[in-house]
Amino acid sequence: MSFQKLDELSHKLEALEHALAILGADEATHMAVGGGEKRAEAMASLAGMYHARATAPEIADWIEAAEREALNEEQAAALFEFRRHYTNLTCLPAEFVERQTGVRMRCEQLWRDLRAKNDWAGFLPALEGVLSMVREEAAMRADALGLEPYDALMEQFDPGNREAEISVVFAELKGFLKDFVPEALAAQEERLATRPLKPLSGTYPVEKQRELGLAMMAAVGFDLSHGSLSVSHHPFCGGVPTDVRITTRYRTGEFLSALMGVLHETGHALYEQNLPKAWAHWPLGKARGMAVHESQSLFVEKQIGRNPAFWRWALPVVEKHLGESWMLEDILPHVHHVERGLIRVDADEVTYPLHVILRFELERDLVGGKLEVADLPEAWDAGMRAYLGLSTIDDPADGPMQDVHWASGAFGYFPSYTLGAMMAAQQWAALVREHPSADDDLARGDFSAVNAWRRENIWSQGSRWSTQQLMERATGGELDAGYFIAHLKKRYGNP
Amino acid sequence: MSFQKLDELSHKLEALEHALAILGADEATHMAVGGGEKRAEAMASLAGMYHARATAPEIADWIEAAEREALNEEQAAALFEFRRHYTNLTCLPAEFVERQTGVRMRCEQLWRDLRAKNDWAGFLPALEGVLSMVREEAAMRADALGLEPYDALMEQFDPGNREAEISVVFAELKGFLKDFVPEALAAQEERLATRPLKPLSGTYPVEKQRELGLAMMAAVGFDLSHGSLSVSHHPFCGGVPTDVRITTRYRTGEFLSALMGVLHETGHALYEQNLPKAWAHWPLGKARGMAVHESQSLFVEKQIGRNPAFWRWALPVVEKHLGESWMLEDILPHVHHVERGLIRVDADEVTYPLHVILRFELERDLVGGKLEVADLPEAWDAGMRAYLGLSTIDDPADGPMQDVHWASGAFGYFPSYTLGAMMAAQQWAALVREHPSADDDLARGDFSAVNAWRRENIWSQGSRWSTQQLMERATGGELDAGYFIAHLKKRYGNP
Repeated sequence: MSFQKLDELSHKLEALEHALAILGADEATHMAVGGGEKRAEAMASLAGMYHARATAPEIADWIEAAEREALNEEQAAALFEFRRHYTNLTCLPAEFVERQTGVRMRCEQLWRDLRAKNDWAGFLPALEGVLSMVREEAAMRADALGLEPYDALMEQFDPGNREAEISVVFAELKGFLKDFVPEALAAQEERLATRPLKPLSGTYPVEKQRELGLAMMAAVGFDLSHGSLSVSHHPFCGGVPTDVRITTRYRTGEFLSALMGVLHETGHALYEQNLPKAWAHWPLGKARGMAVHESQSLFVEKQIGRNPAFWRWALPVVEKHLGESWMLEDILPHVHHVERGLIRVDADEVTYPLHVILRFELERDLVGGKLEVADLPEAWDAGMRAYLGLSTIDDPADGPMQDVHWASGAFGYFPSYTLGAMMAAQQWAALVREHPSADDDLARGDFSAVNAWRRENIWSQGSRWSTQQLMERATGGELDAGYFIAHLKKRYGNP
Repeated sequence: MSFQKLDELSHKLEALEHALAILGADEATHMAVGGGEKRAEAMASLAGMYHARATAPEIADWIEAAEREALNEEQAAALFEFRRHYTNLTCLPAEFVERQTGVRMRCEQLWRDLRAKNDWAGFLPALEGVLSMVREEAAMRADALGLEPYDALMEQFDPGNREAEISVVFAELKGFLKDFVPEALAAQEERLATRPLKPLSGTYPVEKQRELGLAMMAAVGFDLSHGSLSVSHHPFCGGVPTDVRITTRYRTGEFLSALMGVLHETGHALYEQNLPKAWAHWPLGKARGMAVHESQSLFVEKQIGRNPAFWRWALPVVEKHLGESWMLEDILPHVHHVERGLIRVDADEVTYPLHVILRFELERDLVGGKLEVADLPEAWDAGMRAYLGLSTIDDPADGPMQDVHWASGAFGYFPSYTLGAMMAAQQWAALVREHPSADDDLARGDFSAVNAWRRENIWSQGSRWSTQQLMERATGGELDAGYFIAHLKKRYGNP
């Protein structure tokens, strides 16, 4: 039976994925510094074995044959995802993938060096090389998938993302934020004029912050028997669903960035830990895509973790671990601080989408041939001026060299961040319709009903539905910027 | 060119070995407890991939062909080891290996359960099943290698080990220890009568012990940019040469067991870290075998770490980290404590060989058909009575159920421990002939000359020579129990 062969193959691929996931997490946390070169060799070799097995020509025959077999509904869904994965993996010739990997790796290495030196001129030709191959790649993917080129790129990260639809919701959000950013900043000014900011004490030992983070993780639902918290330079959620590795980094001067980072990664981790176990070795058992994944991390970080009700419960926990007592009115201005800035990863909930929309518009035009790399600094600067009133023209390191994504060839990924934020707001709204007492739950530190809703509607579904279907089934409607807009208004607007 | 094909294959195998080594070390140190089942699945699958690739029939043709190619000396040596590995891996039918793996795993699981319950009767049939397959295995290996059955088993762990030769040196050692154990115990009594034992204070926080361990590791030559120290239930040295993972476990009541454990594993680690890098992906680049490996760990733990000269330097380091000042005369009775006991892993330098010799004699007879599992408790008890004056007849958990080795099918491994102890003593003696000031070096904490000798004579040689050749080249003579005997006499005998 051909389905059986796909099932057996999946177990082998799962073992290689397991190794790659743990080796990757280990590299950023526990590996000795001198172990990097051999680790890179080993991982490249394992990735090559994975690719060779996952793209073997006979798999196409198995998929064809399995489609004529008597499958139950679950197997049929699994087969659909087998085909999707196989198509995405095989639509580029091996020779092209190899060449592209080299070009991307060199550009990424160059980026690490030249961003620090603010050297756009040195970086430009490498990024042009990457873009040229991305355009080729987009054309090949578009051809294989019957999609527009930019849509075909997004398809790797979020099956079903379409530029035409994203443009509509992003345009609505952009229109709203144009006026709302100044409004939120003015409201913040007004509040601070009434009640001056109480600064953080600045003495937060790492070990105590770690204990606080672990306590919060456990309370929010992270299963510490199937995961752990470590330290890494860039926070991430990695590992495998039975052993999810999340990380944060600590500054002893303040505790909110580490804690919010822990909550964010815990959101990713809850998704991974609660994926359907029976499907774990199939593509069907994996998370739906990057936007849904981001919706889960932002759900915990923003919808829960920055919710004033949550902080009613959280402040005694903070006091217990850090020995510092806070009034709700004094901590919220830190938790809800809004500021225009150049750096996406430092941005708050209000301004972050503008960073993403700028990148979406630019990368769409780059892929579509309407913009060339040489013109990026001006285009970036114009966008930043228009959206946030800031200029990057003298500072390409904080402009088009700010993120690693493009250097590493990841075009079509940026929209996921803000789609995730919108989905999280829409999910929270749907949850509150069913459980009007959700805020009270948070204030009591009771996450059971909230997590039960998420488990049923999101986590347990794996890749059973398209992103769009998943959202409609969970929230009763298609993606609607209105929920996120209402959320921002309520939290950051004039009272 | 066929040698080239072997070289390329080696890179692929190295990647799988890398994954297995890191996943194995991670399992015992950083893995979440609930991650075990999927980890076992993944590792079994990766081990299967390794085996399939390493035993592919075309490799035999490549080896044949390469032997007719023009190879330099290094390549010829590499080819010799390729063949040796291939023969060892392919001399058992795959069907047999699979069946045996199941039998061993079940017996090992049963052992964990039944040893705790002291249930020999329940364990007996499982061990009989393992032994029956070990006898089959030994016959097949003997056939393929042209060796005696027990020698063919040892060949996996220490190429060149021969029962006939081991029996001679073990007999000499056994004869010596028969009188020497009482002598050493009496000498210890006498010393303690003159100067009463100063007990350890019993307040040694884990973090301080860890810092002490790291300081000692670094001083002795462990490269902390290519390795790390963690905690695990059973101490081990794992990982890969560029990232050696060693572990220990801490008791806050005393600091010597953790520290000595760290020094022991550091000995293993130094060997791994200093293997020839250019050969890293070939079998030729690996450590020579378990006895030589054990000689390296015991060299650091016993020849260096329990040497009174070492403690002249070490005491101020201990004081710095633990805040406790010791006289040399007061610490040495702890470091050199001798006691007859039932448990091999708790035994001291003097009594340990008797535990090993007993196991060697029993497993040789088990494999050779002169002893049956049903008769083991009596045979074990008789040996323990004869060698150490202790009885285990009512306590099989501390008798033939004491170690995991036989349950897991590892027959032929035990001799390595004591062969290693003898080699270490012989290596130290050779080193002192070349560097008569070695003791003074230790007293100053200067390990450079000691490590230079070891690097040149042992570490850099990889698997270039047989165990016997390696010892002869390094020490000028074949393995001679006299060096170890002289060492014990000097350290533990009557003054």
